[in-house]
Amino acid sequence: MTNPLNLHPDRLFPAAPAARDIARRLYNDIKNLPIVSPHGHTDPQWFAANQNFSNPAELLIKPDHYVFRMLYSQGIRLESIGLKNKEGAPSETDARKIWQIFADHYYLFRGTPSQMWMDYVLHEVFGVTHQLCNQTANTIYDSINEQLATDAFKPRALFERFNIELLATTESPLDNLAHHQTILDSGWTGRVITAFRPDPVVDPEFEGFSQNIDKLAELTGEDVSTFNGYLKALANRREYFKRYGATSTDHGHPSALTADLSQSEKENLYLLARSGEISAQEAELFRGQMLTEMAAMSLDDGLVIQIHPGCYRNHNQQIFAQFGRDKGADLPLATEYVHNLKPLLDKFGNNPDLTIILFTLDETSYSRELAPLAGHYPALKLGPAWWFHDSPEGMRRYRQQITETAGFYNTVGFNDDTRAFLSIPARHDVARRMDCGFLAELVADHRLSENDAHELAVDLTYNLVKKAYKL
Amino acid sequence: MTNPLNLHPDRLFPAAPAARDIARRLYNDIKNLPIVSPHGHTDPQWFAANQNFSNPAELLIKPDHYVFRMLYSQGIRLESIGLKNKEGAPSETDARKIWQIFADHYYLFRGTPSQMWMDYVLHEVFGVTHQLCNQTANTIYDSINEQLATDAFKPRALFERFNIELLATTESPLDNLAHHQTILDSGWTGRVITAFRPDPVVDPEFEGFSQNIDKLAELTGEDVSTFNGYLKALANRREYFKRYGATSTDHGHPSALTADLSQSEKENLYLLARSGEISAQEAELFRGQMLTEMAAMSLDDGLVIQIHPGCYRNHNQQIFAQFGRDKGADLPLATEYVHNLKPLLDKFGNNPDLTIILFTLDETSYSRELAPLAGHYPALKLGPAWWFHDSPEGMRRYRQQITETAGFYNTVGFNDDTRAFLSIPARHDVARRMDCGFLAELVADHRLSENDAHELAVDLTYNLVKKAYKL
Amino acid sequence: MTNPLNLHPDRLFPAAPAARDIARRLYNDIKNLPIVSPHGHTDPQWFAANQNFSNPAELLIKPDHYVFRMLYSQGIRLESIGLKNKEGAPSETDARKIWQIFADHYYLFRGTPSQMWMDYVLHEVFGVTHQLCNQTANTIYDSINEQLATDAFKPRALFERFNIELLATTESPLDNLAHHQTILDSGWTGRVITAFRPDPVVDPEFEGFSQNIDKLAELTGEDVSTFNGYLKALANRREYFKRYGATSTDHGHPSALTADLSQSEKENLYLLARSGEISAQEAELFRGQMLTEMAAMSLDDGLVIQIHPGCYRNHNQQIFAQFGRDKGADLPLATEYVHNLKPLLDKFGNNPDLTIILFTLDETSYSRELAPLAGHYPALKLGPAWWFHDSPEGMRRYRQQITETAGFYNTVGFNDDTRAFLSIPARHDVARRMDCGFLAELVADHRLSENDAHELAVDLTYNLVKKAYKL
Repeated sequence: MTNPLNLHPDRLFPAAPAARDIARRLYNDIKNLPIVSPHGHTDPQWFAANQNFSNPAELLIKPDHYVFRMLYSQGIRLESIGLKNKEGAPSETDARKIWQIFADHYYLFRGTPSQMWMDYVLHEVFGVTHQLCNQTANTIYDSINEQLATDAFKPRALFERFNIELLATTESPLDNLAHHQTILDSGWTGRVITAFRPDPVVDPEFEGFSQNIDKLAELTGEDVSTFNGYLKALANRREYFKRYGATSTDHGHPSALTADLSQSEKENLYLLARSGEISAQEAELFRGQMLTEMAAMSLDDGLVIQIHPGCYRNHNQQIFAQFGRDKGADLPLATEYVHNLKPLLDKFGNNPDLTIILFTLDETSYSRELAPLAGHYPALKLGPAWWFHDSPEGMRRYRQQITETAGFYNTVGFNDDTRAFLSIPARHDVARRMDCGFLAELVADHRLSENDAHELAVDLTYNLVKKAYKL
Repeated sequence: MTNPLNLHPDRLFPAAPAARDIARRLYNDIKNLPIVSPHGHTDPQWFAANQNFSNPAELLIKPDHYVFRMLYSQGIRLESIGLKNKEGAPSETDARKIWQIFADHYYLFRGTPSQMWMDYVLHEVFGVTHQLCNQTANTIYDSINEQLATDAFKPRALFERFNIELLATTESPLDNLAHHQTILDSGWTGRVITAFRPDPVVDPEFEGFSQNIDKLAELTGEDVSTFNGYLKALANRREYFKRYGATSTDHGHPSALTADLSQSEKENLYLLARSGEISAQEAELFRGQMLTEMAAMSLDDGLVIQIHPGCYRNHNQQIFAQFGRDKGADLPLATEYVHNLKPLLDKFGNNPDLTIILFTLDETSYSRELAPLAGHYPALKLGPAWWFHDSPEGMRRYRQQITETAGFYNTVGFNDDTRAFLSIPARHDVARRMDCGFLAELVADHRLSENDAHELAVDLTYNLVKKAYKL
Repeated sequence: MTNPLNLHPDRLFPAAPAARDIARRLYNDIKNLPIVSPHGHTDPQWFAANQNFSNPAELLIKPDHYVFRMLYSQGIRLESIGLKNKEGAPSETDARKIWQIFADHYYLFRGTPSQMWMDYVLHEVFGVTHQLCNQTANTIYDSINEQLATDAFKPRALFERFNIELLATTESPLDNLAHHQTILDSGWTGRVITAFRPDPVVDPEFEGFSQNIDKLAELTGEDVSTFNGYLKALANRREYFKRYGATSTDHGHPSALTADLSQSEKENLYLLARSGEISAQEAELFRGQMLTEMAAMSLDDGLVIQIHPGCYRNHNQQIFAQFGRDKGADLPLATEYVHNLKPLLDKFGNNPDLTIILFTLDETSYSRELAPLAGHYPALKLGPAWWFHDSPEGMRRYRQQITETAGFYNTVGFNDDTRAFLSIPARHDVARRMDCGFLAELVADHRLSENDAHELAVDLTYNLVKKAYKL
């Protein structure tokens, strides 16, 4: 027996009738506002080439680490869902078989945001009317496959159908942004911008760090033998990114450590980093110093800084050796902000012209550190609930633990932060519903007037993100 | 004036009427499923000898550290409720007086799970119809006392009345399991199995560690002068425990540290531990290494591993000196998993044939570390909310913080983990109600279909525990 | 367009109708109980001199660090709201202009307790009928200003109107308590007592520590060249404070570290502290030792100990240099209790004659450390949700995470802990409503009888605070 797939119009709204009614009214106001996506990891090549996506597995499973981490946790080998094992074990190439495995195990995702997102994509994007399960897998595969081959499902058509006002991708300073150039040259009006993610050239522990800097020198013509030359090369590259619409930088460090070293300390640390002889602790210090350098550059060129700290990348050494990065084996760490950010804040924290957007994977920092920091320092704002916490309960905890100290106006709206292009509307819809639900509860509890809640719903959905990211 | 004691049929269900109705339907499905209790601390002697319990104080107060920690916190001396002070202060021996003290202070337990469990025991097991208080203490004492003397209240009769399908006790490797042998020999069909808790022989800081290992040598005939001989003795003892039904081991370490040392490092550390000259840090490392050794043995003999880390045992030195272990003076500690488990996970984490069940007393690890770990590594599963968190709010936080990342299928159902035999049905009932309530809220919010919720309710109550513990 | 300002009679009560009805009944019982305020920072001079307050900005904005931290976070300079910059930048002196800036940015406080408190003050104390905003700022300013000039708005009249039974201020041991003397001499029946906050003379890192001790010697006539003489001076000063009603001491340390050093270690550390040559780590140890000394004195003189640990004071060095202490730049830190309190608890923790009230800014300690500690040690009680967590969601988390392990009777009622005199009734009202709402949910979930809830509502509002603080 197969079950119908419905998206209930009240999904995620509070259960108490009075609050639910308010949530409906608030959501009705904002549900059709355009999507502004200031931070994410979609592939600009899609919008440059505008070719049809190949098949459901390639589009919906293979790029989604939320999906294969769960499957893997239950003993399903990554090869069996088509991931390439570099050490040579053969991997499944039949997309229909991969889709079937996913469908057979779709029950594992009950109660997870992955199921909400996928159901939304199936129902809203592809018109699927029955729940995905072992019996419906084939029919649904065929239906998606047929639609993917049509013009209406080309990347640009979907971008427009999704009502996306702006979409930021994320690139390395070493990227030539050729796809962005193709988009600009094409005359297409869709706004796809880049963002500057310098980890490969500011993190001494990144694969190929020193060679990356050599490549940076080539691209910029700067002499990177000195720290100042290296900084010039970075500043040059930031300008290049701005030509492709970049309004922000992004930094994925293991901790939130910042530093403010003397000129000679900085020089020495840079040379050590380049030599490859740098210790783990010195590498951490160098990354911390580079956050401060980036802030200094931001005061010149206006780029907004995003810090995404506290992730243990590639924790599973076997998976990393066989399948590489971003395979669902990244893990959150306890993350300290009050001491770690002090050097940067002492230098630039009081400057309201600077915008530093902080993220966390450690929810304990919401009420203890992040809200108190953002509720005081003019330069700090708080990014939305991130990654593992980009979920209904995660968003609820975020608002409940942030708002009373930082208010709403030290937050910056929603980030979908995704590689999964088709899930973008689904993710924004979850965020909008959760925000409306949260506001509705404040109104129902008589902590907020409904007038104010309507204004806030628009701010949280649309105005704050445009202001914070200077879009 | 005395107040009636009722157990409302809707207790613990969500307040919103729509969700409450769903919770009722879900609970109705599963409320009569048999109890599977894979981890706990009841005394096997009860089921071996099958003698009547002596009196209400002996049965319901003196073994319950939840009860006397609260009484003690409010200035009631442990001697006054009958605990023996080893340093000689006389202790109360009149069970009726002890019961009266408990009743006089029963208001202290308002809002705690102890009150819910005790009310359930009083009402459901003993038919008590009025709230316990100073005025009702005597009548209730008499009523319980009379019933305890009857055949219907013998341990095996209660086991059957409670609809217990299986109950695991926990024993030291040095235990000869004579009570389990008696149970097996008796022809009684009740299934009482053991579990292997090697702390006394793997923790160098355990009282009598080196003598314990000598005893281990005697029991097994192995030469424990070398690390390999010691491991053989442990493997031998695990086999012995399997004969008495054991399907799991259990490890109560101060942290979740694991290690993967070289053969010579292991040898040296073992000799150091045996010498009694081991430092606190080395002892920690030895325990960590032993978790990895246990995992290796589990791959041979199939035993499931339970890790219960992060408890500061016997924090109150005066209480420990006077009354010994397990007197309500154990305290949770912040517990790190991502770094600490890595050596073990690097070695065995990708093996789906291994099952390691993680517990925590540090709720901050739920969303930050445990759910991300269990939602990736095939060998890891998450135990239920433990000890201080085995409570309605604790269970709610557990599901809210675990589910979105790890799903339901990386969890293992409920553990009652109790010494208080009579409270077992009460505890399972609380867990079942909270799970049904949580599922009902997902259904009411349209995050889960009611069909799926019914299937999940059975899985969370019955199927997952049997699968995870191989029962 | 301006919006009406209403305080809904059901504000903060649960949304589900059954629970809401119970909350109303509970609140109705306790809403008129007198206010007992055992810990706060109002200025005793107000009640001594009983002069009219000068204007709305001086009264409602300039003393409220919750208000100016939020304004500052959004780029509003502290000078522009009248704070004096010691480095010389001119500050706004026109109170009406300051009020206008506040009103223009009042939307920033949406969803924060500041807005709830301010709305209460505006509506209940001053009869304001429209929301504060840029358009209503002037009218509201005039209305408040007029009323402030009347007899009914003098400090003592407000104290009586607010139904305050007792109000504790907080003073340094170096304070001569002249204002308290004036109050006593005046014949006014309002009970304003002091509390003993020895940070300036027990924290070697406090500004002017050694000179402060010299002053202590002068005040007491004790020879402070030895540690024992210093202790005698402190004991002497505690006696002095008791004459002015003090029943408690208060300690604001960066961590919860305690120590129990030998006599010679204590002596040496004291001499080092006095010499000014003490390291940060030794200063921490000295403070920790002094907590243990204070506990010893409390066993003599009966004063209750409050520990407010875990705050990074004056984090923003620029703001500290320009504006001094208490300007909204204090930040919570992760705070450990289990290890840190052990030396003190080993010595005095089992003594039910001692009362130590613990506070935290680190909510992760509620269920992990504080509730288990207070639910065991007779000397420990838990203070209410503090500072950043003195808010509806903060209070809800406090009860949800504390109650199941520590119960209600190891807590001590509410502290308003405020400098903002007019907000005292507002703050107590929020606490009473949240407690009634929490109890109502327990009743609605059938975890608590409504009879017990009524008794608890009175205990949480009135009885527990009087008992814990010996009032």
